[in-house]
Amino acid sequence: MTASAEFPRGPERPAGWLSPDEITHARTQLPILYVDAIPVRVDDSGDVVQVGLLLRVTQEGVMSRALVSGRVMYHERVRDALLRHIEKDLGPVALPQIPASPQPFTVAEYFPTPGVTPYHDPRQHAVSLAYVVPVLGDCRPQQDAIDLAWMTPEEACAQQIQFEMNGGQGLLLRQAMGHVGRLP
Amino acid sequence: MTASAEFPRGPERPAGWLSPDEITHARTQLPILYVDAIPVRVDDSGDVVQVGLLLRVTQEGVMSRALVSGRVMYHERVRDALLRHIEKDLGPVALPQIPASPQPFTVAEYFPTPGVTPYHDPRQHAVSLAYVVPVLGDCRPQQDAIDLAWMTPEEACAQQIQFEMNGGQGLLLRQAMGHVGRLP
Amino acid sequence: MTASAEFPRGPERPAGWLSPDEITHARTQLPILYVDAIPVRVDDSGDVVQVGLLLRVTQEGVMSRALVSGRVMYHERVRDALLRHIEKDLGPVALPQIPASPQPFTVAEYFPTPGVTPYHDPRQHAVSLAYVVPVLGDCRPQQDAIDLAWMTPEEACAQQIQFEMNGGQGLLLRQAMGHVGRLP
Amino acid sequence: MTASAEFPRGPERPAGWLSPDEITHARTQLPILYVDAIPVRVDDSGDVVQVGLLLRVTQEGVMSRALVSGRVMYHERVRDALLRHIEKDLGPVALPQIPASPQPFTVAEYFPTPGVTPYHDPRQHAVSLAYVVPVLGDCRPQQDAIDLAWMTPEEACAQQIQFEMNGGQGLLLRQAMGHVGRLP
Repeated sequence: MTASAEFPRGPERPAGWLSPDEITHARTQLPILYVDAIPVRVDDSGDVVQVGLLLRVTQEGVMSRALVSGRVMYHERVRDALLRHIEKDLGPVALPQIPASPQPFTVAEYFPTPGVTPYHDPRQHAVSLAYVVPVLGDCRPQQDAIDLAWMTPEEACAQQIQFEMNGGQGLLLRQAMGHVGRLP
Repeated sequence: MTASAEFPRGPERPAGWLSPDEITHARTQLPILYVDAIPVRVDDSGDVVQVGLLLRVTQEGVMSRALVSGRVMYHERVRDALLRHIEKDLGPVALPQIPASPQPFTVAEYFPTPGVTPYHDPRQHAVSLAYVVPVLGDCRPQQDAIDLAWMTPEEACAQQIQFEMNGGQGLLLRQAMGHVGRLP
Repeated sequence: MTASAEFPRGPERPAGWLSPDEITHARTQLPILYVDAIPVRVDDSGDVVQVGLLLRVTQEGVMSRALVSGRVMYHERVRDALLRHIEKDLGPVALPQIPASPQPFTVAEYFPTPGVTPYHDPRQHAVSLAYVVPVLGDCRPQQDAIDLAWMTPEEACAQQIQFEMNGGQGLLLRQAMGHVGRLP
Repeated sequence: MTASAEFPRGPERPAGWLSPDEITHARTQLPILYVDAIPVRVDDSGDVVQVGLLLRVTQEGVMSRALVSGRVMYHERVRDALLRHIEKDLGPVALPQIPASPQPFTVAEYFPTPGVTPYHDPRQHAVSLAYVVPVLGDCRPQQDAIDLAWMTPEEACAQQIQFEMNGGQGLLLRQAMGHVGRLP
């Protein structure tokens, strides 16, 4: 999962958003609902030609690749959470084509205990609805990301890139490529 | 959503399960992850021939039809939650064929505010992964259900039965029938 | 299925396309592969707000509503067939967003014998991969269609419109609306 | 695609089945509709624990692994074709759980020209609806298969086994494992 900030830091936190203490507590008690988006560029026939991966530097100073990912808020629709997180990570003019159907291509279950599923998040039990989202506009990395790299499906599934992804997101990316018929 | 008990009442509550106070509080702050199962009987070719609906009497004394539905617990996989709720509602020898894929046929978003989505749950914002689950064994209504009725897809989608379903579950049932190619 | 022309009439028929005699013969011997597209308008969150239906007059002079539908050619990819039929029916600047994944929301099996499935095509056994396709551009009815009407999901699923659709396409439209969470 | 016989050899060929000459001719003119089944063993929670692969010796004497695969006949439903081919390849008591929904997890487009898609069939343009099918009963290789091997998803996706699969079926198997959450 991304380590990006998920709520504003100021006192102007909207109603329904949890305080840092509250979300920390909830994370020990309930599965937390997430969305994962795999941003892609497609050609006129809808065929995926490129996948977008965020590049971040972790607190330990390690380079890490990530998908767009984040929590669904109280009283927020899944499709609105998808749109919000994509705009948060790729900027306001990415023009994401949010899927018409709420059916995700898979559900990624990030467990705090490694090995229960192929996904792992030490902070929490997160259950993430995963979608492939074509973006038509101009994308720029936001906040803590230092780059947004566009790669072919083959490049994104290569071992070197997979090693730079954490918590099972490399697998989730390959599942997405399988879903769109572009798994190498 | 079902009003059935979701956690044991005694002091022997397993670790990771919330107290009634805690779940009540969480329900005002976070989307709560659910599963909905549409139990079906299929023929040898997998074609749905019957749908199982639970009959309950609400606290107000009104007859109500319901799908199998319930919360996903902390540190519980979605497929284990599906199995647990089906056994809780249909008994221990229902022999449910839990889907091999975690991809739900839809995601039902029950909002505490009516009208945001077609699904409504006054108690909470619940996001439910919905699956069609063939059952091969003997099914008996458990706990607070007074009957389990098997109907054809046509009967289950008829107006009279739809009126007896609450919170958008009638719609969810019809979506399931659309998914299996049996929407009348 | 649409009654629209599926191949050019002149002598310049591309290699791999069948002559009218050949396709007539094949239709009595093999299931013929089709695509069905449900053209939709979506809002920024991807929610379907309108469905596009073609209006045609049948040879018997009856008004009829139809989805975009047509045959997949020899050596043509499914996604290219989708694009070709949408441009054929909605014009060259419809800007259809062909799905990244080849997974259809359903498979409609049109049988020459009524009653085997809910879909019927007296000419042939056609098996159609069905997709919901958002269109971003300007759509104009082409060829034999006299209008392209945009309706809300509620309007498109209303009994009067359903009566004007043939061969089970009304059902297919409602299945599509179930898939995108907009079945009334 | 499998090289197994797809129609009876005797004069008693059922109505609607093509003669060898006719199918040979049709294969040069039309996409031919197929089904691919990935037979799996699942645990009580529906989690895939094993995948079944057929072992055949090709006409050139090379060992080859294959999925269950075959043509959909004229006037045959997709679900009946799935059942027929599974019984043909795994025997009459395999007890396959044919999916309730006709939605395939993907569509594999086998082109006669290599490289158009990742799937290839030198004989024809075949478009195959692919399904994961749990089998509950006793499976025995039939006809020309010399073995049916059950492997874990990890074993089936290993390079050695993938090398023994032809026409892109190794990829299709890995896509299936991605779909059920078991891609290594």
